[in-house]
Amino acid sequence: MKRILIIGAGRSTSSLIQYLLFNAEQENWFITVADQSKELAFKAVKESKNARAIAFDVNNDEERTRLVDESDLVISMLPAHMHISVAKDCIKYKKHMVTASYVSKEMRGLDTEAKNAGVVMMNEIGVDPGIDHLSAIRVIDEIRKNGGRIEAFETFTGGLIAPECDNNPWNYKFTWNPRNVVLAGQGTVKFIQNGKYKYIPYNKLFRRTEIIDIEGYGKFEGYANRDSLQYREIYGLNNIPTMYRGTLRRPGFCRAWDIFVQLGATDDSYVMEGSEDMTNREFINSFLAYNVTDSVELKFKHYLNISQDDVDLYDKFVWLGVFENTKIGLKQATPAQILQHILEQKLSLAPDDKDMIVMWHRFLYEKDNHYHEIHSSMVVKGDDQTYTAMAKTVGLPVAIATKMILNGTIKTPGVHIPIAKEIYTPILNELENYGIHFQEKEVEPRFY
Amino acid sequence: MKRILIIGAGRSTSSLIQYLLFNAEQENWFITVADQSKELAFKAVKESKNARAIAFDVNNDEERTRLVDESDLVISMLPAHMHISVAKDCIKYKKHMVTASYVSKEMRGLDTEAKNAGVVMMNEIGVDPGIDHLSAIRVIDEIRKNGGRIEAFETFTGGLIAPECDNNPWNYKFTWNPRNVVLAGQGTVKFIQNGKYKYIPYNKLFRRTEIIDIEGYGKFEGYANRDSLQYREIYGLNNIPTMYRGTLRRPGFCRAWDIFVQLGATDDSYVMEGSEDMTNREFINSFLAYNVTDSVELKFKHYLNISQDDVDLYDKFVWLGVFENTKIGLKQATPAQILQHILEQKLSLAPDDKDMIVMWHRFLYEKDNHYHEIHSSMVVKGDDQTYTAMAKTVGLPVAIATKMILNGTIKTPGVHIPIAKEIYTPILNELENYGIHFQEKEVEPRFY
Repeated sequence: MKRILIIGAGRSTSSLIQYLLFNAEQENWFITVADQSKELAFKAVKESKNARAIAFDVNNDEERTRLVDESDLVISMLPAHMHISVAKDCIKYKKHMVTASYVSKEMRGLDTEAKNAGVVMMNEIGVDPGIDHLSAIRVIDEIRKNGGRIEAFETFTGGLIAPECDNNPWNYKFTWNPRNVVLAGQGTVKFIQNGKYKYIPYNKLFRRTEIIDIEGYGKFEGYANRDSLQYREIYGLNNIPTMYRGTLRRPGFCRAWDIFVQLGATDDSYVMEGSEDMTNREFINSFLAYNVTDSVELKFKHYLNISQDDVDLYDKFVWLGVFENTKIGLKQATPAQILQHILEQKLSLAPDDKDMIVMWHRFLYEKDNHYHEIHSSMVVKGDDQTYTAMAKTVGLPVAIATKMILNGTIKTPGVHIPIAKEIYTPILNELENYGIHFQEKEVEPRFY
Repeated sequence: MKRILIIGAGRSTSSLIQYLLFNAEQENWFITVADQSKELAFKAVKESKNARAIAFDVNNDEERTRLVDESDLVISMLPAHMHISVAKDCIKYKKHMVTASYVSKEMRGLDTEAKNAGVVMMNEIGVDPGIDHLSAIRVIDEIRKNGGRIEAFETFTGGLIAPECDNNPWNYKFTWNPRNVVLAGQGTVKFIQNGKYKYIPYNKLFRRTEIIDIEGYGKFEGYANRDSLQYREIYGLNNIPTMYRGTLRRPGFCRAWDIFVQLGATDDSYVMEGSEDMTNREFINSFLAYNVTDSVELKFKHYLNISQDDVDLYDKFVWLGVFENTKIGLKQATPAQILQHILEQKLSLAPDDKDMIVMWHRFLYEKDNHYHEIHSSMVVKGDDQTYTAMAKTVGLPVAIATKMILNGTIKTPGVHIPIAKEIYTPILNELENYGIHFQEKEVEPRFY
């Protein structure tokens, strides 16, 4: 019997645990779900005889090392910065490990030790990062195998609301951690286009978008992620002239979001005076110049250059209630925390809402002096608020990789991300059984 | 005989050392000038028999403690973050200390120890901070003494080029550390106006300026400093409805500077790829979207909304040479470092240039149901590139405070800033002998 330890039973683990429980009998697995909240862990394993639920504190060294020692493989679904103590235990007790998170510098630093210990530490095997790697590298490998030279690779992913539940002027709801949405894009964006390095500061990021059309799903807009450059080396595309990674929203979202950026409403670096007694209207007014006669609405439009007839844009803010005298009631809060609170009143999911994950890749390549362009897209919708698109696309690749490590298909020790053919082919194939698949089409090549 | 140790003999110390040497005989002082560069220290003391110059490394604990122990008072003209080890030595050996820097949290933390040791640690006694405190508190105390209630206090200071040497379209030259000019304003600005807290993010800071007219010197524009709020408590104006501190430039500077902010060219948080081989033109282009047909100039104007007929603004950039193919030649440089390098080619002082310090205060107060408004302004020009306005206005208050501590006029122990009447009156009076004086006038009260 193989023993699997899952640390963390939060929202993104439902499909992962469902898959493991479903296959436990046949694969001869015993699953331990450990979470800070015993209730959450119990809810996850239900009545399964192949699993148990336990309350767990990751900072309790004794408990953590004992649990790791009792397992054959550990799946850490903790927040990314909390993986490292688990990873060190896994090396010490020679246990495999799987995470859906980006490889941190510390995690990368464990590569030699992991190799010496003979353990596989598979990371970035969720959706983004995860399915983006699997699906992009499959196409890239195919192009290279056929003698093509890749000129441009662009990739976008978005966690959105399913079209049938999309009923607000932002065409957006929080399907994932709202705090990350509010803080998204802070810092400087770096990418390369036609051999030129390009940098976008935060205050311009949401005005430098690209429009993408996905058949059957309509138009999306993409803004750039922070650092696209590092993926050149990871994908073996060191000399690629264009490499761009981004995030998808529905058209119009970014221009409106930029208004919050321009105001300073997404700033998380200081606490606002008197935030507890502040109203939505006062929050907005604190970013506008004092004026004894002009209304907050007029100052807002004037300061942010919103024309009188730009109703689509302006109505997004009216709909959010930012001009209302609603009390916020948050003590010692930063602008970003207050904004998140205001948005959550309006952009949270209703009980029957379904989410949607959209991924889109563009490959431009040259072969025999001809240019070719391939678009590859994936759209996954959630079943309900438990088996969300996010939970499926994050959890299922983690689960399948876990199976492959335990049955010996994946066996090269070290700290990895899933870019080898032996890994991406079977995982992508199995994901198709769960409705996670890519539409590829060749299109007329575009040049910018 | 009293022994004075001056640590640091940089640009801002010329007038300070001149004053101390001039008064050394009469006051029975012996002065030690210590600097990393023995040459600089020697140049400062010249042939004086009341002074010596020594090479000195502030991080050499043994040497530093010995020098402090041999002195009666230590003047630290080091960069602000380097004062603290000197301050601790001063307390240990019971020596007074004077600095022109803002009181850091660590410095403030030494207050009790300083009191116990019976030593005076006078800080913020340069120009800004320094003369701003002296001159503002004098007016504030006078208003309060006469029963007035202060409604608004605004204060602006600028280090600029003297009008007779002002010969470029930016109406600006680097009269002080260029790096601080390039990074100025990063973070969030906080102030209070008519009882409303107001916040300005960096990306709007240089578009929210105020125009100030100083008789005989023309118009200036002011942008807000980072945190105006803390001065309410320091000045005993806890309930003041309007408190605003800012920096002065000539009109037009801020709108043009904002272009660099919008581009991301003042970012100091990352290294640009290939900075060594980059040209000015490529630097600007790296912040603009790729386009195969449009010129850098056209993209620049379009992206930043510079109209074809906005010649005053656009010519500032042409004059700087930002579109030229001049090689930058800086290895591993951040955007801010590259921008500083480009600006230094054009905005550095010529040998005969003179600088100018401008300070302006506005006080609005109510007395017997009538409103009154006082404007107070100071303009100081440099004599040459040694005895600059900056050196005079920073150094002379430091020197006078030193004299007052050594002759027992200032004797209350502890960590202080100069806001007591017994301190500001004699210092402001003596500064008048050096041409540093304020013009006060009552004007028609303005309300915003």
